Amino acid sequence: MKIIKPIQDVIDSFTKLPGIGPKTAQRLAYYLLHVPQNELDIFAKALSKLKTSTVLCSVCKNVSENDPCEYCSDKNRDKSVVLVVEQPLDILAFERTGKFGGVYHVLHGAINPLENIGPDEIFIEQLVDRIKGEELKAIKEVIIATNPTMEGEATAIYITKRLKETANGNPLKITRLGMGIPTGAYLEFADETTLTQAIEGRRLL
Amino acid sequence: MKIIKPIQDVIDSFTKLPGIGPKTAQRLAYYLLHVPQNELDIFAKALSKLKTSTVLCSVCKNVSENDPCEYCSDKNRDKSVVLVVEQPLDILAFERTGKFGGVYHVLHGAINPLENIGPDEIFIEQLVDRIKGEELKAIKEVIIATNPTMEGEATAIYITKRLKETANGNPLKITRLGMGIPTGAYLEFADETTLTQAIEGRRLL
Repeated sequence: MKIIKPIQDVIDSFTKLPGIGPKTAQRLAYYLLHVPQNELDIFAKALSKLKTSTVLCSVCKNVSENDPCEYCSDKNRDKSVVLVVEQPLDILAFERTGKFGGVYHVLHGAINPLENIGPDEIFIEQLVDRIKGEELKAIKEVIIATNPTMEGEATAIYITKRLKETANGNPLKITRLGMGIPTGAYLEFADETTLTQAIEGRRLL
Repeated sequence: MKIIKPIQDVIDSFTKLPGIGPKTAQRLAYYLLHVPQNELDIFAKALSKLKTSTVLCSVCKNVSENDPCEYCSDKNRDKSVVLVVEQPLDILAFERTGKFGGVYHVLHGAINPLENIGPDEIFIEQLVDRIKGEELKAIKEVIIATNPTMEGEATAIYITKRLKETANGNPLKITRLGMGIPTGAYLEFADETTLTQAIEGRRLL
């Protein structure tokens, strides 16, 4: 038994995506056989144009149609607060809250020695450059919002060190996202690290 | 907050796929931003060519690169036994067993009044045509292997009726796939219908 090449090609492409195994890929490919050709063409065109129609913002490295991106070019946003995230998707999470009016910096990853990702493989120096020279007075606070994982924490520590070196005594507030128990969670199921963080980060009522 | 169009287009296409929700679609689209352009082009080309490079076999309606398909044109396969399935993927499941040496007939669906799929919307008459005239002597057995769902059962009953009418007294064996408890299952968790089928389909040891 073998699957014919046109179908196998689609299965192979789907299998390369994260979270899609061979069985799901097979199901999707066979599903697409029942879809009108023009929808397949639309899908194909969207994929081809995904990267060619987008650029990385020269300021914050966010994925954007224009350079600078919508946040960096928005006059209503507070350029003195920079929130540092690992991925462009993280920006969407913050935008959904509607509570952050500053600008962003996208690292496009986190330091991960096991996968050979060092500080130079992600956009850390570009962040350092943003607070250098003239900009040093313009930027008052850098909020580090990398994920609370081993890699995210290591990245946060490294960035803090580099920013402090660069600020060189000038006032620059470097903060880390608050950690603790998430809304809607049950304390019963919270792990020790989260609870420790929650105790350390307790607030006066 | 809005997602830029090139990314949103990819998200929209993914969201249309079965089992892929908006969150997964978003994750996949952003993942693809990190993939080399040539892989995106390969994916896009595979999608565009999926239907243009395939045909339905004129004999069995299986999706194939050539007409007739690899099973219908294979001289080593027993043309006197036809196994009727709902989808091309079901053929792969039977081929994996390596225990079926006959040919297939793909219905491309099952009778489902709720979704306006009647007998004419799927390839039932094409199956009836296969056992007509000259072919009636060539085909000795039709094994109906539609899914053991409401729709699959209704389709099996309808096909049986049509085939019996067409055979018109001529010897044609019409069988249904054996039903009962699947290998590796625990009786404890088997539902009543399955157990009833298993008792009815019991075999002498």
